[in-house]
Amino acid sequence: MTIPVPVEEALKMQSCSGQVSQSSQAVSLETALEIILRYAQPVGTERISTRSALGRVLSENLYAPVNLPPFNRSPLDGYAVRAKDIADATPDRPVLLEISQEIPAGSYSEIELAGNQAAKIMTGAPLPPGADVVIKFEDVKKTDNKIGVVSSLPAYANYCFAGEDIQQGEQVLCGGKVIEPASIGILAALGIPVVPVYTKPKIAVIGTGDELIEVNNRLKPGQIFDSNSYALAAYVRQAGVEPVMAGIVGDNTEMIACKIAENIESAHMIITTGGISVGNFDFVREALGSLGARILFHRIAMRPGTPTLVALKNGKLIICLSGNQAAAFVTFQLLAGPALAGLMGITKRRLTGTTAVLADDYRKTGTQRNFTSGRAYFDDGILKVRITEKQNSGNIKSTLSINALIDMPAGTGYFKAGTRINVFLLHPLCRYWHNGSL
Amino acid sequence: MTIPVPVEEALKMQSCSGQVSQSSQAVSLETALEIILRYAQPVGTERISTRSALGRVLSENLYAPVNLPPFNRSPLDGYAVRAKDIADATPDRPVLLEISQEIPAGSYSEIELAGNQAAKIMTGAPLPPGADVVIKFEDVKKTDNKIGVVSSLPAYANYCFAGEDIQQGEQVLCGGKVIEPASIGILAALGIPVVPVYTKPKIAVIGTGDELIEVNNRLKPGQIFDSNSYALAAYVRQAGVEPVMAGIVGDNTEMIACKIAENIESAHMIITTGGISVGNFDFVREALGSLGARILFHRIAMRPGTPTLVALKNGKLIICLSGNQAAAFVTFQLLAGPALAGLMGITKRRLTGTTAVLADDYRKTGTQRNFTSGRAYFDDGILKVRITEKQNSGNIKSTLSINALIDMPAGTGYFKAGTRINVFLLHPLCRYWHNGSL
Repeated sequence: MTIPVPVEEALKMQSCSGQVSQSSQAVSLETALEIILRYAQPVGTERISTRSALGRVLSENLYAPVNLPPFNRSPLDGYAVRAKDIADATPDRPVLLEISQEIPAGSYSEIELAGNQAAKIMTGAPLPPGADVVIKFEDVKKTDNKIGVVSSLPAYANYCFAGEDIQQGEQVLCGGKVIEPASIGILAALGIPVVPVYTKPKIAVIGTGDELIEVNNRLKPGQIFDSNSYALAAYVRQAGVEPVMAGIVGDNTEMIACKIAENIESAHMIITTGGISVGNFDFVREALGSLGARILFHRIAMRPGTPTLVALKNGKLIICLSGNQAAAFVTFQLLAGPALAGLMGITKRRLTGTTAVLADDYRKTGTQRNFTSGRAYFDDGILKVRITEKQNSGNIKSTLSINALIDMPAGTGYFKAGTRINVFLLHPLCRYWHNGSL
Repeated sequence: MTIPVPVEEALKMQSCSGQVSQSSQAVSLETALEIILRYAQPVGTERISTRSALGRVLSENLYAPVNLPPFNRSPLDGYAVRAKDIADATPDRPVLLEISQEIPAGSYSEIELAGNQAAKIMTGAPLPPGADVVIKFEDVKKTDNKIGVVSSLPAYANYCFAGEDIQQGEQVLCGGKVIEPASIGILAALGIPVVPVYTKPKIAVIGTGDELIEVNNRLKPGQIFDSNSYALAAYVRQAGVEPVMAGIVGDNTEMIACKIAENIESAHMIITTGGISVGNFDFVREALGSLGARILFHRIAMRPGTPTLVALKNGKLIICLSGNQAAAFVTFQLLAGPALAGLMGITKRRLTGTTAVLADDYRKTGTQRNFTSGRAYFDDGILKVRITEKQNSGNIKSTLSINALIDMPAGTGYFKAGTRINVFLLHPLCRYWHNGSL
């Protein structure tokens, strides 16, 4: 996915109004993504409490304000002693040390250990001055206020140094990363109660089509329920962003333009479905033209989702997907998802690509580049992928099991089981699995 | 992970009060999990809107109330015709058909196609009676109200049957599964506005230890910030459940008992950290004893997290983890996470196990079974795992990059790079990747 991309070329091919010729050339997926990501920028920053920061995106690198641990401490329950005092200890000639102090967790001692003294110490408690080694409770013989040590230990055995986990001033978290539970733990451990994050973008989802009705109605002949708005809004919400379900609009240029205009002020991006088939019923493109939106591209050299259209209005992306559910799903994942990540401020915006072993034979239809839906799974540590049964773009049931898109290049035809092929892993969290580069 | 487990044996070994001997035998991880899951049952059911169902757990199997598509429909923009009328069409002898009707999306027609008639039809529109094939716009020559067809097509080419995607009555979603964005799309497509889900459990998190202070304070000597409560609450929240951060309590049996008693009424499970080291400072066990809680087990034959204690009070689990951050992390993942899944009603409660290739040489210390923290990644479709640097149980920085736990059996020592080893994948969503069994 790092092919150099002639973005300027691609941009030049497109007119700056909605009135470009219907035969505008299809762009490659890579070019489409490059164009989209140019405009998918974070929408702002704010400061929020660490308690509520899960899933948000850090907007700055964070550095440790303190050492972790904050002091030299004992890693176990035992006796802090001086290594030189016990250097000659053996089971036959145990060294006797006086228990001169006790340091429970949460307390500390400024009293230096004198020769042949031991401090009873709890896990995590600060080591007293002079002590350089800790002996486990189980390894000593205790009598009244003395312990008998039966073996030596090198200096700094069972000894945790201040800052050995995290050093004060060290970078601990990166801007542009999603704050995960472990990040919350680190922030708390460092005593950071407030963090800088990117503001959540607002994403409006619009369904277009005379055949669509809202879910809580009764179907009349020829109608279908608007499932795309629901599914796309759910993908947006899964990414941690609250979608605006802007509703359904019929196949009418003026009404579509009106709906887009209504939402473009408050939303940072609009996703529409339907009404983009190049030809007789290109309502969305006409609507965009009437609004003076700039068409960035219309048509991508891939299936499904060839007629995908992306426009810009007031600097905001309007991503127009096919009305076919499976096509809308694939193009959302490949284009709208990365745009969403960009608006959220996530540095790694593209899907994770890797290779997988094809589980079954497959015959690709057509000569175009195909993104075939599949289900990836681990088989004894090997990533394999099974192609989901029905691949026609109106099929919605298959979306339930898809977690990978298989990139089948233009011009290819028959793939034998066992072939290693390029896949994109779909789960948004698989973004963070790429080559260990968290 | 399917070793037959002597649960009854394990349970018999434990006394029914908190007053069992300190030397109670350690149970295996498998036994511990078996015991916990027995008590981790869903807490109730409710009905919520499909719009708000993302991430919730379906409590019943769902069946399709309608066919998808709901009617025989056209998969493309074109002309619906009768296959027998165009059987002899060739480029030299085109068949001329009269355009007798037009069917946009959202409308329908009850007018049967007569001989040598064609209906102009849009993608997704219902096919008129009599039509059994659709020809693409691009494949005909149009003149006024007639089309010229230049090649034949078999009956039911470009023809979508009602119910071919989903049949009315067919099971579409399984109870016990998390509702993902694609499930929301299916529910909407089927016109299901309300779904039955399991009620979210309430999980209280308590930090114990005299050394702990709240994040928005200043550290005094010997003190550390309570990061465990923050991290564990974040893991609970990531699973889709709202945690109750019940606060910090010092190393005092009575106060710990009081804090547990306070929370056990409203919470469905309590997770504590700290105060479980077997021996002098076993405050939590003493507190549980004073409450009459039943100790299910104390000590697991593994590292880190050996002193893990699990008790039952009012039929509710109290999972007591080590105060060491890395140990709390590992045992949360292996034990509390599956318990949480059980309370949520998720059928697949255990972590996904698979094998991975070890990236570096590793020398395990000690003779116990170890769960070594690692980072799994794809290397050309092969799952590999790199061991995180510092493995001491007080280390918190390493938790940032851990996404796998490597199961190193008791008695093993040296592992060579390239060895294939058993791992558990940690991200909660990797649960759904197991052998294609969504």
